[in-house]
Amino acid sequence: MTYASVSINTPPPYLTLSSNEKLPVVLSIAGTDPSGGAGLEADVKTITANRCYAMTCVTAVNVQTPAKVYSIHNTPKEILSQILETNLQDMKCDVIKTGMLTVPAIEVLHEKLLQLGENRPKLVVDPVFVATAGSLLAGEDVVTLIRDKIAPFAEVLTPNIPECFKLLGEERKITKLQDIFEIGRELAKITKCANILVKGGHIPWSDEGEKYITDVLYLGAEQKFIVFKGNFVNTTHTHGTGCTLASAIASNLARGYSLPQSVYGGVEYVQNAVAIGCDVTNPRIKDNGPINHVYAVEIPLEKMISDECFTALDVLPKKQITSAADKIPGGNFFEYLINHPKVKPHWDTYVNHEFVKKVANGTLDRKKFRFFIEQDYAYLVDYARVHCIAGSKAPCLEDIEKELSIVASVRNEMGEHEKRLTEEFGVPDQSYFQNISRGPALRAYSRYFNDVSRRGNWQELVAALTPCLMGYGYALTKMKGRVTAAEGSAYYKWCETYSSPWYRAAMTEGEQLLNHILETYPPESLDVLVTIYGEVCELETNFWTAALEYE
Amino acid sequence: MTYASVSINTPPPYLTLSSNEKLPVVLSIAGTDPSGGAGLEADVKTITANRCYAMTCVTAVNVQTPAKVYSIHNTPKEILSQILETNLQDMKCDVIKTGMLTVPAIEVLHEKLLQLGENRPKLVVDPVFVATAGSLLAGEDVVTLIRDKIAPFAEVLTPNIPECFKLLGEERKITKLQDIFEIGRELAKITKCANILVKGGHIPWSDEGEKYITDVLYLGAEQKFIVFKGNFVNTTHTHGTGCTLASAIASNLARGYSLPQSVYGGVEYVQNAVAIGCDVTNPRIKDNGPINHVYAVEIPLEKMISDECFTALDVLPKKQITSAADKIPGGNFFEYLINHPKVKPHWDTYVNHEFVKKVANGTLDRKKFRFFIEQDYAYLVDYARVHCIAGSKAPCLEDIEKELSIVASVRNEMGEHEKRLTEEFGVPDQSYFQNISRGPALRAYSRYFNDVSRRGNWQELVAALTPCLMGYGYALTKMKGRVTAAEGSAYYKWCETYSSPWYRAAMTEGEQLLNHILETYPPESLDVLVTIYGEVCELETNFWTAALEYE
Repeated sequence: MTYASVSINTPPPYLTLSSNEKLPVVLSIAGTDPSGGAGLEADVKTITANRCYAMTCVTAVNVQTPAKVYSIHNTPKEILSQILETNLQDMKCDVIKTGMLTVPAIEVLHEKLLQLGENRPKLVVDPVFVATAGSLLAGEDVVTLIRDKIAPFAEVLTPNIPECFKLLGEERKITKLQDIFEIGRELAKITKCANILVKGGHIPWSDEGEKYITDVLYLGAEQKFIVFKGNFVNTTHTHGTGCTLASAIASNLARGYSLPQSVYGGVEYVQNAVAIGCDVTNPRIKDNGPINHVYAVEIPLEKMISDECFTALDVLPKKQITSAADKIPGGNFFEYLINHPKVKPHWDTYVNHEFVKKVANGTLDRKKFRFFIEQDYAYLVDYARVHCIAGSKAPCLEDIEKELSIVASVRNEMGEHEKRLTEEFGVPDQSYFQNISRGPALRAYSRYFNDVSRRGNWQELVAALTPCLMGYGYALTKMKGRVTAAEGSAYYKWCETYSSPWYRAAMTEGEQLLNHILETYPPESLDVLVTIYGEVCELETNFWTAALEYE
Repeated sequence: MTYASVSINTPPPYLTLSSNEKLPVVLSIAGTDPSGGAGLEADVKTITANRCYAMTCVTAVNVQTPAKVYSIHNTPKEILSQILETNLQDMKCDVIKTGMLTVPAIEVLHEKLLQLGENRPKLVVDPVFVATAGSLLAGEDVVTLIRDKIAPFAEVLTPNIPECFKLLGEERKITKLQDIFEIGRELAKITKCANILVKGGHIPWSDEGEKYITDVLYLGAEQKFIVFKGNFVNTTHTHGTGCTLASAIASNLARGYSLPQSVYGGVEYVQNAVAIGCDVTNPRIKDNGPINHVYAVEIPLEKMISDECFTALDVLPKKQITSAADKIPGGNFFEYLINHPKVKPHWDTYVNHEFVKKVANGTLDRKKFRFFIEQDYAYLVDYARVHCIAGSKAPCLEDIEKELSIVASVRNEMGEHEKRLTEEFGVPDQSYFQNISRGPALRAYSRYFNDVSRRGNWQELVAALTPCLMGYGYALTKMKGRVTAAEGSAYYKWCETYSSPWYRAAMTEGEQLLNHILETYPPESLDVLVTIYGEVCELETNFWTAALEYE
């Protein structure tokens, strides 16, 4: 008989900030979706992924999947009553969120809300009448009862367009934003619920040729509308978006955020969950699938393995270090990358950018140049931060130091930008640099950096950081001898910087670093590095384009 | 009418690594706990917090809270059958996890498992007969049926001790580990389930005066036992631990980890969730409360606010920067800290440590000194990493650079350690330094750093990093003129380092940095910095004590 012993490295982990944590509590009253993407399950997942504590009251055990609603099995009134009673008596509760309600559930909840009076938790009502896939989840009686007995108690009501029509008792034609405003205001009147969020998720608007999604929040007390305008995501995997949004709003409210803040956080969460998506349906179910509730959740066991302080090496041996270097013909990873079909088009557009030509020949509008320098200045702060994070993830001290030495040269570059802005454009003082307002191209780039920093390993971070270093050098080296901007001018000096000998030296180090990261990177994941490289080249291109198009 | 528009900064976030993510899928078949801490709710929370996709099959809508089980309302057999059928037909499923089962649920599942044959998902069976609070959740018929119809299909069975007795049909006396081994082996035999995890969570063992928790995994094929030994956490908040552990194991299995690895990850997860805990019960419920399933989950909305790339400044204005500096009489934060009642005892023990005296007078065992230098060397790599993270979180470039300059001096210190180990102790080559094995004191310290890095802001990281810098200087300055170790010896040189002029200069900078962080720290949270400082002083003390006690 063998017998091994493994020590569990339990806390105290940072007990200071989290012992006996006061988790905000959200009670979801809803029907189940056993397939996990919508209903009560989506609620519990969302509340959990927003670091809140979920309680439940199952109004019906449904049989449904993204394909269809197969059947509904309602929970008896006395059980519902007992659940509400005991949950509110034994537990704390900050917010109640309702989804699919049955007649008995409405009666029990209405009574409870009356009984609690001013002590009642905040209430978020998602009037679920129709599943995303189109199945009817409630009859006319429920529509009327929700409108009359539940909505008046709610902090916010979150109907989608078909649900708006149900509540209004008629269909409307919607052709412009104003039509939605009208619906919101009218719903507030007839439901006596002060705030209405009309979810436009089902209607992608066309605005200058682009589709986007509009959620409109009507704040009754201030008679104010807030329009949340998101990118349209081209996917059919939207099963559960309604439940998820209402639960995210409820979680944010429970944490103490205002209603507009809570809605903002909810909409961002849902749109991320939709765009990232997940692959959990049987391949033959093509039309509809669940969203990804856990996109921001880290995997505890993977964290444990990567933390040096965990010691279950008996059961979790350290991963063998594998090298992807052999997969690179010729051995130069940088050359491999810029010639890879996934990267080449983006790389070529990037290093042959019109912006650079216009700086080099001195024809770029000064206003555009100034905008570029300002955006680049703000970018460099992010760039320095990401290098710090790369340092923290690097395998050994030598690699940590390499990252940090780059931060020092970033500092130099920023110093030159400061000089440019002060001397060329008369920027009066330092505080100006801290308050540069970020344009969309910079924001997209920062967002990408944020995500890579959070999820990527050292090698992936290096891959994301290198296009900036290499591309500027390449683009300006191509201009060598063709710079016709006045010698000594800001444009001339800018061109000079990136074709200077010290910059060439930095590029050589960059090339070596790219080869170096391969030595410890799993060959089977090589495509991840390639994709990142290509995506960042595209972000770089957009960054210059944004300056070129700046008015 | 006012009308504001807010852009939603949706993806593409790092789509490379996560688009249409293949989330591992776990189907939980269990009864509900509407109060959210146990049962199906605990399962969904755990699976979500482990970044997997949860599906459900509700065997019963229960009425329960941590106080008691009030009533049970079973789901009809045909609904259970439909749920299993549609879930497995429309969705992917990697692992099925069972909790509270009813007779119809067992029948339906048994039939399905037979029907699926070799194509069935892995099965984790938590034989829930008794709630943690003591209420009976299943009759004798269920015990027999689980043993005969479900357990034989399972990858692992996870009974606690009372459940072991139920399955064995008799109570046993347990006085030593061997008794548990015996139970595991016997259960494997009578259930025909190859692997048994006997959960000792309910029995804190006494070992050399210390209580700890033992979970024993019996691997039938190899006839091998693995004992997972965790710290006993002094809390009554253990509601839902059983369901949570089985779900965490199921999630890890679904991700592809081996059974021992999955159990290790599950036990760590549960023990963290217990130790961190949460405060969600009504204060009059004192005896039992839920564990914290979301301890490792970040709050999406807070992340959004702190990310520069998000732009909902209309609804989420930047937090006003507040200064805690006014709260420090005399204005010297360092003096305030080391005299604070929460810090002073730890600081005094730390800077007056016997270890330092014994180095200074040359009487420390050379073996102990070598152990210390090795552990300190490994520590300094962590220390450098945490400075990198502090840099990435620092408010401006100047503060980023301050953190990085410290990494450079850490490098010097490590160089001296390398010299000591090579010259004094004949360490042959560099590879030795990479493979130093970490003792418990270092691991506890690293773990703390890990947690602060993940959850803390820049100021909190600085507070965690400063005791090391300041304490060594203080301890050795106290020794000035009292160092009797032979001049030029390794002991002498070590003492010299931390009382040298350059080290004093670093300490002055450290003091200034401590004042500097206050300028942007909310006064109401000051106690967090104080607590961190005190806790780290304690970790430093333990670090020297470990060296002193090394054999």
